[in-house]
Amino acid sequence: MKRKPVVVGVTGGSGSGKTSVCKKIYEHFGECSILMLEQDFYYKDQSDLSFDERLQTNYDHPLAFDTDLLIEHVQQLLRYEAIEKPVYDYTVHNRSDEVIHQEPREVIILEGILILEDPRLRDLMDIKVYVDTDDDIRIIRRLMRDIKDRGRSLDSVIDQYLNVVKPMHNEFIEPTKKICGYYYSRRRTKSCCDRPDDNKDCCCFGRKSSSLERCLLEKAERLR
Amino acid sequence: MKRKPVVVGVTGGSGSGKTSVCKKIYEHFGECSILMLEQDFYYKDQSDLSFDERLQTNYDHPLAFDTDLLIEHVQQLLRYEAIEKPVYDYTVHNRSDEVIHQEPREVIILEGILILEDPRLRDLMDIKVYVDTDDDIRIIRRLMRDIKDRGRSLDSVIDQYLNVVKPMHNEFIEPTKKICGYYYSRRRTKSCCDRPDDNKDCCCFGRKSSSLERCLLEKAERLR
Repeated sequence: MKRKPVVVGVTGGSGSGKTSVCKKIYEHFGECSILMLEQDFYYKDQSDLSFDERLQTNYDHPLAFDTDLLIEHVQQLLRYEAIEKPVYDYTVHNRSDEVIHQEPREVIILEGILILEDPRLRDLMDIKVYVDTDDDIRIIRRLMRDIKDRGRSLDSVIDQYLNVVKPMHNEFIEPTKKICGYYYSRRRTKSCCDRPDDNKDCCCFGRKSSSLERCLLEKAERLR
Repeated sequence: MKRKPVVVGVTGGSGSGKTSVCKKIYEHFGECSILMLEQDFYYKDQSDLSFDERLQTNYDHPLAFDTDLLIEHVQQLLRYEAIEKPVYDYTVHNRSDEVIHQEPREVIILEGILILEDPRLRDLMDIKVYVDTDDDIRIIRRLMRDIKDRGRSLDSVIDQYLNVVKPMHNEFIEPTKKICGYYYSRRRTKSCCDRPDDNKDCCCFGRKSSSLERCLLEKAERLR
């Protein structure tokens, strides 16, 4: 009989570098089969709202997500059943008609800003990792992405950050740090800042990263 | 005989809101005569350097300041002697030929990012206040100022922040927090963020602000 898949939750604020940490986690599972489940795919279906109403949605609030569906999918994957992953269409701020067929895997990496907010989802995770990054670095990443890649104005990005992203972060994301058994500290120490060109990977792992690595390797071992 | 002037040091990172705090401190001294001494006026004379060399100066490092002159001026003011305050010309990154004649006052407010770095200067202060503001709020203020008011590019402001401002802050400014007897916390708590429009003054005072107010009023009283 196959062992139950391992579920690793990776959370942290907007712009904290969760994706890079997920990639590192991937490496630890070497030859195991892995899948990634991004919470962003699970924004609620908003077909009942007009486009203008959808613009008013607070996408940094737990209620923006279809957590029931996400939980159902994780449970199916834990039983080694395939899922039909929803696709979110950012151009219309709504779930697309498309779905992605996803076969089960030995390792499930669950990534998102609010994956730890619901205790039912939280309880399905074997390992919870918080990516802890300085607030100024996070807003810089967000500014670069939203202004350069998405063509938004400085004012609109900053307004959204101050009015929505930051208060939601303080209220819902930051408090989940203490729930996590492990974290990657990407806080910039003096020595990190000696290598300013290497913006993504210059930051040290937190004090718990060696035990996280041990834990990941152990889980990977057990799946063999 | 006149009482020795009171020296209040107000420090904190770039964009922390030191000026607003200085204004609040002003109010506490009501009818006393007050002067403000900005550390920025005391950037070193760089006449021995070419313009290109001056562009290379690290203006967030303690060595950028003529601290000896600043100390001398504070000492003169403490003896109720007038000073000739230097003027810094940012267009040429050098001290101007101009000086400002400054008569002594009963209260001296000393403001700047690195006024607590030199123990000789620090020892001349009666009260030391640290303005403690979230890093993301500080970079937002800097971005707004440098991009909107000074016409700089997003990339150049962020590069300077990551390569110079932030590492210098971590190395020289942040550590002076523990030296301060008082601080104004401008960290955005949840309730602060409920009033996002009021960017400048929505933040609570720190836990020590009531004792700071008491102390300021006492000092003001003693000058009467």
